Amino acid sequence: MRPTILAFDVFGTVADWHGSVAREAARRAPDIDAGAFARDWRAGYRPAMDRVARGEWAWQTIDALHRRLLDPLLTRYGLAHWSEAERADFNNVWHRLDAWPDAKAGIARLREQFICVTLSNGNVSLLVEQARHAGLTWDTVLSAELFGHFKPHPATYLGVAELFACRPADVCMVATHQSDLDAARDHGLLTAYIERPMEFGADAPKTASPPSANDWHATDLENLAHQLTARS
Amino acid sequence: MRPTILAFDVFGTVADWHGSVAREAARRAPDIDAGAFARDWRAGYRPAMDRVARGEWAWQTIDALHRRLLDPLLTRYGLAHWSEAERADFNNVWHRLDAWPDAKAGIARLREQFICVTLSNGNVSLLVEQARHAGLTWDTVLSAELFGHFKPHPATYLGVAELFACRPADVCMVATHQSDLDAARDHGLLTAYIERPMEFGADAPKTASPPSANDWHATDLENLAHQLTARS
Repeated sequence: MRPTILAFDVFGTVADWHGSVAREAARRAPDIDAGAFARDWRAGYRPAMDRVARGEWAWQTIDALHRRLLDPLLTRYGLAHWSEAERADFNNVWHRLDAWPDAKAGIARLREQFICVTLSNGNVSLLVEQARHAGLTWDTVLSAELFGHFKPHPATYLGVAELFACRPADVCMVATHQSDLDAARDHGLLTAYIERPMEFGADAPKTASPPSANDWHATDLENLAHQLTARS
Repeated sequence: MRPTILAFDVFGTVADWHGSVAREAARRAPDIDAGAFARDWRAGYRPAMDRVARGEWAWQTIDALHRRLLDPLLTRYGLAHWSEAERADFNNVWHRLDAWPDAKAGIARLREQFICVTLSNGNVSLLVEQARHAGLTWDTVLSAELFGHFKPHPATYLGVAELFACRPADVCMVATHQSDLDAARDHGLLTAYIERPMEFGADAPKTASPPSANDWHATDLENLAHQLTARS
């Protein structure tokens, strides 16, 4: 039971979206509760993708969905006076997410033995620019955008195996969201859970999934590298 | 006139397909003319993609096309006795192409100022494994496989600009094949020609395109990096 490909979720698993969005929001709007703003923005993400999946909205990138969610949120937080340029620039904060402190070294170590790719609902340009921003190196960026479906659609998980002409069991999904891993497992992938207790901020700690549900359970990506490379 | 994205052709431009295939062929079959074998294999590549483009053959990866070309070629070269395992392994020589000596440093330097991606007819796994083999780092791997069409179909050139939400003129195609650059220019991309006089081997030198036809004309990728980064 050893994968050849590791497919990484990005938002929360590799990148600290909450801290990054909250820091930039606080800088731009010092008077709002920036941590709550970041959580509220992110809370619209899954419902928006679900509307696309149900066909209520046309296919669109996460950049477009983020922007669609941002405008009413700015009004709610008393920031309706922001210009178009300010909104467009702030929407790109998702291209500038900082990585968790262990991500760069963990991924570099894992790349010595495994092909490491993203498998994210973020669009290609977002993922490429975020990796450059955070100094991460991927073997390639795979995105819902390339498969025409958001996770958890089977085309995403099975698409990785198809592109690499391997079995689903040769691919391990790496994520901090149990629902992502459950869907991956349903389609035959291996799974590695990464604890990210601060995903939603220090004032909203997350309870980690129990270790038993997944093939690997790691405290962070350096710990995952330790577990996976110690096995060989 | 400055691109933000550089899109690289791989076979011949970045990777020395002739030398790599000929060396492995010579090792496996010391009695054949390995240089001619490599050229003959490659000569079937464009006609095979054209058959797919015309709809005579179903969509298939370059790995599949290479294999389809390999079997009759082995017979022609007196190697019909090769086993299925030998054929499958040799077909993967395209995943193990060495890079030209200037490629690694040239791409690394270009990545400091530009997003550097492949735009190749090679399939994703081929491109990922070739990059790992040769120690190259891409921002991401873009392939005909992801667009469902081989170059020179417009979906490939325009697909890069679409994924990065930029204008075609923000993308520069980097290639050693004038036909690839001409097609890219027809769709609004900038073009950079790379001389690769030994693409087909030292015994079959290639005449370089004249400097005037393209936005840049470079002797190799380090020279391109010098030209593009000196402008800023």
